[in-house]
Amino acid sequence: MADGRLIFLPLGGADEVGMNSYVYGYGREGRERLIVVDLGVTFPDMDTTPGVGLILPDIEWLAERRDRIEAIFVTHAHEDHIGAVGYLWNRLRVPVYARAFTACIGRMKLEECGIAPETIETVSAWPETVQAGPFTVGMLPVSHSIPESSALAIDTPIGRILHTGDFKLDRTPVVGEPFDHSLWKEVAASGVRALVCDSTNVFSPNPGRSEASLAAEIEELLSSATGMVAATTFASNIARLKTLADAGQKAGRSVVLLGRAMRRMVEAGKTAGILERFPRVVSPEDAGDIPRNRLLLLATGSQGERRAATAQLSRGKYHGFELKDGDTFLFSSKTIPGNERHVIRIMNGLSEKGVEVIDDATDRYHVSGHANRPDLEEMHALTDPAMVIPMHGEHRMLSAHARLAQAGGRAAIVATNGAVVDLSGNSPKVIERIEVGRTYLDGTELVDSKSFVVRDRIRMALNGHVHVEVQIEGSGGKAETWCEAMGLARTGRSGEPLDEVLDHALMRALGRQKRKVLADDQAVDELVRSVVRKAAMAEIGKKPEVTVAISRVD
Amino acid sequence: MADGRLIFLPLGGADEVGMNSYVYGYGREGRERLIVVDLGVTFPDMDTTPGVGLILPDIEWLAERRDRIEAIFVTHAHEDHIGAVGYLWNRLRVPVYARAFTACIGRMKLEECGIAPETIETVSAWPETVQAGPFTVGMLPVSHSIPESSALAIDTPIGRILHTGDFKLDRTPVVGEPFDHSLWKEVAASGVRALVCDSTNVFSPNPGRSEASLAAEIEELLSSATGMVAATTFASNIARLKTLADAGQKAGRSVVLLGRAMRRMVEAGKTAGILERFPRVVSPEDAGDIPRNRLLLLATGSQGERRAATAQLSRGKYHGFELKDGDTFLFSSKTIPGNERHVIRIMNGLSEKGVEVIDDATDRYHVSGHANRPDLEEMHALTDPAMVIPMHGEHRMLSAHARLAQAGGRAAIVATNGAVVDLSGNSPKVIERIEVGRTYLDGTELVDSKSFVVRDRIRMALNGHVHVEVQIEGSGGKAETWCEAMGLARTGRSGEPLDEVLDHALMRALGRQKRKVLADDQAVDELVRSVVRKAAMAEIGKKPEVTVAISRVD
Repeated sequence: MADGRLIFLPLGGADEVGMNSYVYGYGREGRERLIVVDLGVTFPDMDTTPGVGLILPDIEWLAERRDRIEAIFVTHAHEDHIGAVGYLWNRLRVPVYARAFTACIGRMKLEECGIAPETIETVSAWPETVQAGPFTVGMLPVSHSIPESSALAIDTPIGRILHTGDFKLDRTPVVGEPFDHSLWKEVAASGVRALVCDSTNVFSPNPGRSEASLAAEIEELLSSATGMVAATTFASNIARLKTLADAGQKAGRSVVLLGRAMRRMVEAGKTAGILERFPRVVSPEDAGDIPRNRLLLLATGSQGERRAATAQLSRGKYHGFELKDGDTFLFSSKTIPGNERHVIRIMNGLSEKGVEVIDDATDRYHVSGHANRPDLEEMHALTDPAMVIPMHGEHRMLSAHARLAQAGGRAAIVATNGAVVDLSGNSPKVIERIEVGRTYLDGTELVDSKSFVVRDRIRMALNGHVHVEVQIEGSGGKAETWCEAMGLARTGRSGEPLDEVLDHALMRALGRQKRKVLADDQAVDELVRSVVRKAAMAEIGKKPEVTVAISRVD
Repeated sequence: MADGRLIFLPLGGADEVGMNSYVYGYGREGRERLIVVDLGVTFPDMDTTPGVGLILPDIEWLAERRDRIEAIFVTHAHEDHIGAVGYLWNRLRVPVYARAFTACIGRMKLEECGIAPETIETVSAWPETVQAGPFTVGMLPVSHSIPESSALAIDTPIGRILHTGDFKLDRTPVVGEPFDHSLWKEVAASGVRALVCDSTNVFSPNPGRSEASLAAEIEELLSSATGMVAATTFASNIARLKTLADAGQKAGRSVVLLGRAMRRMVEAGKTAGILERFPRVVSPEDAGDIPRNRLLLLATGSQGERRAATAQLSRGKYHGFELKDGDTFLFSSKTIPGNERHVIRIMNGLSEKGVEVIDDATDRYHVSGHANRPDLEEMHALTDPAMVIPMHGEHRMLSAHARLAQAGGRAAIVATNGAVVDLSGNSPKVIERIEVGRTYLDGTELVDSKSFVVRDRIRMALNGHVHVEVQIEGSGGKAETWCEAMGLARTGRSGEPLDEVLDHALMRALGRQKRKVLADDQAVDELVRSVVRKAAMAEIGKKPEVTVAISRVD
């Protein structure tokens, strides 16, 4: 079977932080058997995707080759690795494999999308493996900011691939398995053809710090605080929840979990048997009897999500709790680029209540879940691969990571979303580029990112919208118009209502037209758009989006 | 005249970074004579102000008291201090005072708004003063990131106020006046009633670094780079332009200025006589004859502005220049919160061209223009005021600054936009809160932030827009509808076109109504909205904005 080729194709994650999805294939050209690693989402923003619920990978290429796909493997339960499985599985319908905790989270997601939870099969950690066509896949424990994160050891007929997933080198991760150097050395000992490796922290120059290094500082903070303390972090960062809760307990504070995701994750951690000795949690109701200065609230919403517990606490009461002068709020988290304004708004809301806000500016209360530059070098050295394929990162991260690998004497390549990379030779080569877009979950519908739907919404947001009803007598007789403007100044330069100004401009313009023009729907449509845009520009300095409905009466 | 009261009122800048505008008043209650310090802007974003051009202070309170305003003083030429003068001056029509460089920039802005440039009168630095009703105002040089920044020494019948404007304590600012401790000591010697003081960097724990500290690192970078080098910073940071250009010259590189603002600022600097010995600038045309590795481009657009030179270089050619593999791009700037995504997009665009992108992560190529925490303490000690009023900053900055002052034994208060503060007593007191909004420059119109205009655009961006034309026979007969959806999925659950699904739902609902309902425009309007929103929710999972036009035919 060693007459095939081995290919790698990122569909998401390789040009961005988020929406991870990678494909491996082995076999004769055009007949490769395929496996998918991760099906993650990324989050919308007002600039590019207003009103969109989630952004999913474009899996058109995969769907067209459904009969060649053996399985989907999910490395860990972060949204940017697992979030799209529920929405896209129906188009692929192949088995999904994950370790217990990840499978537990994944099954909840499938159920919400009406898919049988058994679709996800639980796999134990290495040395257990799954046979998937020409691939034999094992799940290698790595440390990260969520339990049971796994790298994949993917054996192919022409050698072993190590796909790191998201990882850090943490020997004392508080929850879950420490990074196990000797295991990795052992797995790599037989030779590694390619290391496909997380790149997000390549610009962080110092070795990553361990989760365990935070405990002392957080305890100190919780002990010295005089009022109520609330803290936020990603709900999925169960190790951090434990670090915070343990510190709270030592400081004599009872722990309250605020927000559904927070409670759900702690539950899942206990169910999966990975969260032992978590301090006793008090319900919001029972917390009423405890003095404020003996409480620690752990709240969802570290990224400024409008409806999460943190945002609600910044605006007013949440489940009976209200923060006030003398209280402390700790952001035990890093703000993801793009979320700054939302987080800042919340910090200022808390400040207005007299709350002291402590953020990650000092690096004392947060550590990253990703491998920093020296850790990446360590990983390269540890696994000694023939080639390094940087994944998960913006272009400049992939590029810096590739340079780092090359500086270490290894072949490397920057392969962005849609690049089909041949891993069969001595160095990686991009042999083809497929067109990959994105898919938007908009309401309940999946919408192609190249469709007009979201583009039209952005244009209305920037320019406003004018709808014009045109009524024309007979095939080309007298025309009447009614304009309805939305999102535009009511009056402009002339002081007259904008709708009327536009109507007058249209009546003048249409009145000058010959019957032949007025008989032609497309000509009327174009004329109306052009007149409205010009007249609005002159009146209020904006060119609105214009829609036109033409009706003809006898 | 010492029987009056002294008041301070921020209209902008005290709850935000940007849009600075402050009012001082002295006189009998309700008859105070007023001066305005700064009329700045802040910049819109898609989240809250899509399509808006600029955000200006709400000066309704001032306009209603126009006859009591003596003058406007502008501390320096940054947009968030001077940007609104051109748009709002017509509503106030009082003299504007500024130092030469600021006045030069301000006059260009007034001319663009059709206002006589002589409106701005040039004032020399302290000890020159301007008499403005009960106030005597002098302009005290401070160091900042634009030339001729000034604090104001405002003498009132009951004592001296020092209004710092934006400042840092830079003894070697490269361009402009070094911070002059002895002058400040002298001015403060007779006693300072209130220090109204910049707060933006209160969370920066180390003393601020001087502009001059950058030269060596930048020279080193420009000398070791092998290809073309481009760099960006705020065009108004003339000292940085000089630092960069000087370093370029030393590294044997010819300097090219890219972007209108860049050329304009260097021109203004030369005109105002503050920019001497700036290296000779080469035009883009003449640069064609110079080898790439002997060029330094200085480009506008450090904040990711889509149309600026930096963004254009990241996408393709700009004035004949195209960056490529082996070139270097330096961001000698800090990304303002909220602009991250735009800047990151540009960095990745450059990375895709093979350009090495160097940002401010290392702190080696940028210093801030604002006073850090220890510098603020130094300023408090130097001027020894009876009270400190923190200004220019988000709430948590003002709050931390007030605590810092209190820890130093001084009275302090957090006064946010709209708070009228009485400075007449021994400690500052908020005596009234006026309602202040914001004013949007939308196209060519000034729109109140509380109007529906922008709110409607945001809703259309999030939810899409459906316009419904309803035609009813007689006063309450048969009804027909036409739906036009914009920014919504074309089909949903049923697979039928959305417009038709909505039309059917409307026909069914209207068909069930009694004549009385159909005769009532408001009832029909409400019914149509409700039916469309419900039907769209069921079909595509979104509740669109709905506008309705009703016509009645015989």
